[in-house]
Amino acid sequence: MMRRDRLFLVGTLMAVFSADLYFILLPKLQSMRQRSHHVCSCAANNLTLQRNGALGTPLLSSWTSLLPQDGNASEPAEGSSKLERLFAHPLYNIQTPALGPEERLLQAVQLMEYYRKKVSRWERHIKLYSEAAALSNMTVNEHEVTFDPDASWLKFHLGINRFSLYSRDDPAIQQLLEEMQSMTVVSADYTQDEKALKGACDCTQVVKPSGHHLKLALKMQNLAKAMFKPMRQERDEETPEDFFYFVDLQRHNAEIAAFHLDRILDFRRVPPVAGRLINVSGEVLQVTHNEDLRAVFFTSPANNTCFFAKCLYVCKTEYAVCGRPDLLEGSMSAYLPSLSIAPRISIPNPWIRSYTFAGRQEWEMNPFFCDSIKQLYPYNSGNRLLNIIDMSIFDFLINNMDRHHYEIFTKFGDEGFPLHLDNARGFGKHSKDEMSILAPLSQCCIIKSSTLMRLQILARPEYRLSDVMRESLQGDILQPILTDPHLLALDRRLLKVLRVVQRCIRRLGKDEVITKDFIKSSARPITEMKEVR
Amino acid sequence: MMRRDRLFLVGTLMAVFSADLYFILLPKLQSMRQRSHHVCSCAANNLTLQRNGALGTPLLSSWTSLLPQDGNASEPAEGSSKLERLFAHPLYNIQTPALGPEERLLQAVQLMEYYRKKVSRWERHIKLYSEAAALSNMTVNEHEVTFDPDASWLKFHLGINRFSLYSRDDPAIQQLLEEMQSMTVVSADYTQDEKALKGACDCTQVVKPSGHHLKLALKMQNLAKAMFKPMRQERDEETPEDFFYFVDLQRHNAEIAAFHLDRILDFRRVPPVAGRLINVSGEVLQVTHNEDLRAVFFTSPANNTCFFAKCLYVCKTEYAVCGRPDLLEGSMSAYLPSLSIAPRISIPNPWIRSYTFAGRQEWEMNPFFCDSIKQLYPYNSGNRLLNIIDMSIFDFLINNMDRHHYEIFTKFGDEGFPLHLDNARGFGKHSKDEMSILAPLSQCCIIKSSTLMRLQILARPEYRLSDVMRESLQGDILQPILTDPHLLALDRRLLKVLRVVQRCIRRLGKDEVITKDFIKSSARPITEMKEVR
Repeated sequence: MMRRDRLFLVGTLMAVFSADLYFILLPKLQSMRQRSHHVCSCAANNLTLQRNGALGTPLLSSWTSLLPQDGNASEPAEGSSKLERLFAHPLYNIQTPALGPEERLLQAVQLMEYYRKKVSRWERHIKLYSEAAALSNMTVNEHEVTFDPDASWLKFHLGINRFSLYSRDDPAIQQLLEEMQSMTVVSADYTQDEKALKGACDCTQVVKPSGHHLKLALKMQNLAKAMFKPMRQERDEETPEDFFYFVDLQRHNAEIAAFHLDRILDFRRVPPVAGRLINVSGEVLQVTHNEDLRAVFFTSPANNTCFFAKCLYVCKTEYAVCGRPDLLEGSMSAYLPSLSIAPRISIPNPWIRSYTFAGRQEWEMNPFFCDSIKQLYPYNSGNRLLNIIDMSIFDFLINNMDRHHYEIFTKFGDEGFPLHLDNARGFGKHSKDEMSILAPLSQCCIIKSSTLMRLQILARPEYRLSDVMRESLQGDILQPILTDPHLLALDRRLLKVLRVVQRCIRRLGKDEVITKDFIKSSARPITEMKEVR
Repeated sequence: MMRRDRLFLVGTLMAVFSADLYFILLPKLQSMRQRSHHVCSCAANNLTLQRNGALGTPLLSSWTSLLPQDGNASEPAEGSSKLERLFAHPLYNIQTPALGPEERLLQAVQLMEYYRKKVSRWERHIKLYSEAAALSNMTVNEHEVTFDPDASWLKFHLGINRFSLYSRDDPAIQQLLEEMQSMTVVSADYTQDEKALKGACDCTQVVKPSGHHLKLALKMQNLAKAMFKPMRQERDEETPEDFFYFVDLQRHNAEIAAFHLDRILDFRRVPPVAGRLINVSGEVLQVTHNEDLRAVFFTSPANNTCFFAKCLYVCKTEYAVCGRPDLLEGSMSAYLPSLSIAPRISIPNPWIRSYTFAGRQEWEMNPFFCDSIKQLYPYNSGNRLLNIIDMSIFDFLINNMDRHHYEIFTKFGDEGFPLHLDNARGFGKHSKDEMSILAPLSQCCIIKSSTLMRLQILARPEYRLSDVMRESLQGDILQPILTDPHLLALDRRLLKVLRVVQRCIRRLGKDEVITKDFIKSSARPITEMKEVR
């Protein structure tokens, strides 16, 4: 009996142990193994970044005294903001010299005068329009327009100077972003370039960088103006491999993400962009005074409100965009000051691509292309070429191949910076890095020291570009703006930029490659304030 | 010692048993449970079909003596072909009356004469073209054309008669399908309707049922001609809910599937269609003599050979189709005899839809629409209205809303059957059943008895429409042609058709609804051979 009992006991214990082993321990072990697998992939990431650290170090070595240390090279404590720490970094707190009137784009008096005229012109227009509408028994949603001398868009316009479009600590920029997300829309219209086409498409050209012509100009209650680009593609869709860059869809989230990246890179050459859910009935159809725009609206078989492009697709509705049933995601890009008070010139990018099927440009064939560019005005003096290289780094990071022209404020002449406008064709493919976008950097082998230092900082794990981007984009109401593969692609591409610089240095030496610029750090002057001429 | 040994033994045994239990038995049990889950879902399907059996029974009850029983109502044994059994069913072996010359579309002598002329015209053309090409130093792939009086396409054309396009047991049809899949292509061109557009698009119309204009006419070595429609959409993609039916993409697999379904329904009004992998370089670009067609070819950034539509998208390449790198899936639809020897008329479908955003047709508003149609020539006599109802059932099953016109061979006049041409907009959504397509049936409440009986047979588990379709489609080289959700939708829609008929019978009585037609079963005459006039 005793023995049997003991046997039974042992058996039971074994069964309990086995059950415990397989039901409790084994799953735990498995989940631990899985987690360790995750850790591995993170470790792989860390490794990549360590490699970059290694890559960055020799570059940085000569400026260790210049590059202000924040004394904490390890991962920041949980909960702390990498983005705040980045923007607190001395490199990001550069004193721009005191701005004289010549270095500001606009004068307050002039802008206020312009604004006042706008408001009264709007009021006259509305009066006439309402009378005409009443005569033809049309109901129009009329919203009051307010004259607000403290409007954030005015402050944004007044802040534009020879160095950048805005300063990062200007509270008006955050306010402008918020207003673009929510302020009442009082009117909607086609944009000027759309109107210039007059619905005609030159179909004699086989290929044309025509965009999708679904962008709209929206006016808000205080007459702030924003360009609305509707969502055309899901966040996780990639551009089909057979698409040419010039026929790629425009992505609203690329516009938003490009603004954040440009700010993180501290270029500040992208006007503020915020996401918005637009009610296409209430905020476009019912407030537009443009008959043509009203005519492209229709109700889809699924009872959603849609509108289609005036040009090119006029016979077709399958490329329309539709609300759900009225709400439509899109990007809102703040307008720059009117060309009438702040003219800009549009200059072909020297590294322009051939907008044809098989054509090739000189820069694609001639490895010494940059040598000839360096001889040419305006690239033979000043910061212009360095700025073009900045722009190519920005475009490489966002994977934008569609930078055929760039714009400069006429007022600043050759000292002006190129605006990073129209980034909606970025972020099309996370799985591909188009090295040819970096041609200006890899062919000219020069880079601003301030740009390089910021890139190196962003490659460090304690800041890591993807992390600060993720954090920055979380501020947008349409978040998540970018999927993780796109964020991680930024880290990978950043390393590739640094590798190109390293190769240049190996070939030509640091002094030839890293070029002093006029930027002055608040913590410690890196270089003298000097305009390279 | 003994006890310890025994304890050890027991322990080991328990461990072995536990290991066996958890590693071997448990997974097996789990997989069995999963399998039983699958069985459950099948059971649910069976249930649905049982319900249908119940639904079918009262309808069938009065013809049980007419409907030849095959004595086996249970599921067929594993491995047996449901499709073969279906086609062996007496209902599918209907004797068409002996065909006089007036009941055949073409006479052999006339067709041979036409063919001979075609071949010699081709040879003259090739001679001239080669000389011209040699003068302009152009290399053209020239293939010999053979005159083959036994060509399958000739037999197909000769077989067309007043009752159908082909007989199911004609070996020439299978041969034609195989030849369309593999025979050398000697020339490629735009189709006639494409050429008629001359690349112009009337963009003053907001909406236009224009198709995508990427279909091509391919000629094969024996001068068989087929219309090639390239793959534009993945098998598992559904038409977006905001698309109007008239702007939906054309699907090559829908063309293929529609041919098989039409044959299974025993209408035989769709010309043979087979899938084919076309080498767009070797079998289109290099064999076309049309400069315009050659001009729309290009190499994509991913190095694939692509071509785009001549009309409408002339500025755009994002709607191009591309090979991988040269091979492109598509459907090959056998051409009907040339209009010059077998003219056809195109007649607007009385249940035509409004091809505008918001327009509605009379049939959508007037429940008594059919009463007026029944008064109108040619729907007031003969089989025409019954044939339109057949067509609406076919269209409902494939979910095709784009049947604006139908064609009839002029020779057969009012006795002709409507051709089921152009089915590429079917099979767009498996998740939706568009009941309005059934309007001719639900509004007129009449149906041919032969059609109804076949539908009832196909609803029975021993034949089951989705199963015979799956089997039939397996014969195509591009299989799988339809995804399972599309196949299962056929069963669901079939039940809905039967339910509509049942409602009609409940309302009007069997004699009013089920209409005798001229079809004669080989097994037993169902009705007298009679042309309702």
